[in-house]
Amino acid sequence: MKQGLTIVKLTEERFGDFIHLIEKLAEYEKLDPPDDKAKIRLKKDGLSENPKYEAYLGMVDGKAVAYIIFFMTYSSFLALPTLYLEDIFVLKKYRRRGIGQKMFEFVIKQAKERGCGRMEWCILAWNKPAIKFCEKNKAKRLNWYFYRLTRDQIEKFPNIGPNI
Amino acid sequence: MKQGLTIVKLTEERFGDFIHLIEKLAEYEKLDPPDDKAKIRLKKDGLSENPKYEAYLGMVDGKAVAYIIFFMTYSSFLALPTLYLEDIFVLKKYRRRGIGQKMFEFVIKQAKERGCGRMEWCILAWNKPAIKFCEKNKAKRLNWYFYRLTRDQIEKFPNIGPNI
Repeated sequence: MKQGLTIVKLTEERFGDFIHLIEKLAEYEKLDPPDDKAKIRLKKDGLSENPKYEAYLGMVDGKAVAYIIFFMTYSSFLALPTLYLEDIFVLKKYRRRGIGQKMFEFVIKQAKERGCGRMEWCILAWNKPAIKFCEKNKAKRLNWYFYRLTRDQIEKFPNIGPNI
Repeated sequence: MKQGLTIVKLTEERFGDFIHLIEKLAEYEKLDPPDDKAKIRLKKDGLSENPKYEAYLGMVDGKAVAYIIFFMTYSSFLALPTLYLEDIFVLKKYRRRGIGQKMFEFVIKQAKERGCGRMEWCILAWNKPAIKFCEKNKAKRLNWYFYRLTRDQIEKFPNIGPNI
């Protein structure tokens, strides 16, 4: 099976397949998928000259069955870029054949080639198969809490003084 | 006190003060501070034309007493940039005067102005004052696990097949 996997960069022609996979991941994670306006932004943000993210598709027999999205963050203590893996997903039917592992190894290779000091990602705490995957790959779980302010919280934030 | 705080962008002249503050944060977090080579990279990465991070200093009476580092990440589901707050730190002597809050609000303002869909950050799980700070600001703690591959793990990663 692994031999049949090809990893290709996101292109305009593959954008429909890409959106389909993102929707499947959102469904799996019980989260809202991108709406129509978000899809337009996603295309622009991923395919413009200075893309905001990088995406690759995993192809088996000409069909897009997996995808990854990553971008660079930064460690101030190492003073090196970190490769942050935002999404990694394999269609249900194609799991347990090493495709996720191969995609993950492709990402590590990218991190290595770009001289990253770290590779990081988050998983949902209830996602047992993902935890197992991380342990198999000897990734270190950090004793950190992850916090968020939502769009609504940001937009409603009051104007702050003239000092700033 | 709050009135006496000015928030200024990192410049070459302020780089020494900036490094001093990063070292103080590393000390507080019991982590390794940047070494000499890292300091050189940090300068280049923060002050070049396409900087890898943005940094601001909090000044009181002409003294740099606080700093923040942030950069943009991306949400594939929202298809919007996320402002990721990498570091926020106030020198011990200057805490409990609202400086951290003012710096944090400055960051929210940046997120708002740049049309971010989210603002995110991590804190060390043992950092009780930081947890209190997050709660006060009504940030949502996500039920996520944060994983990392270290530089050593990335560099030692074996070459993978010609398929990639």
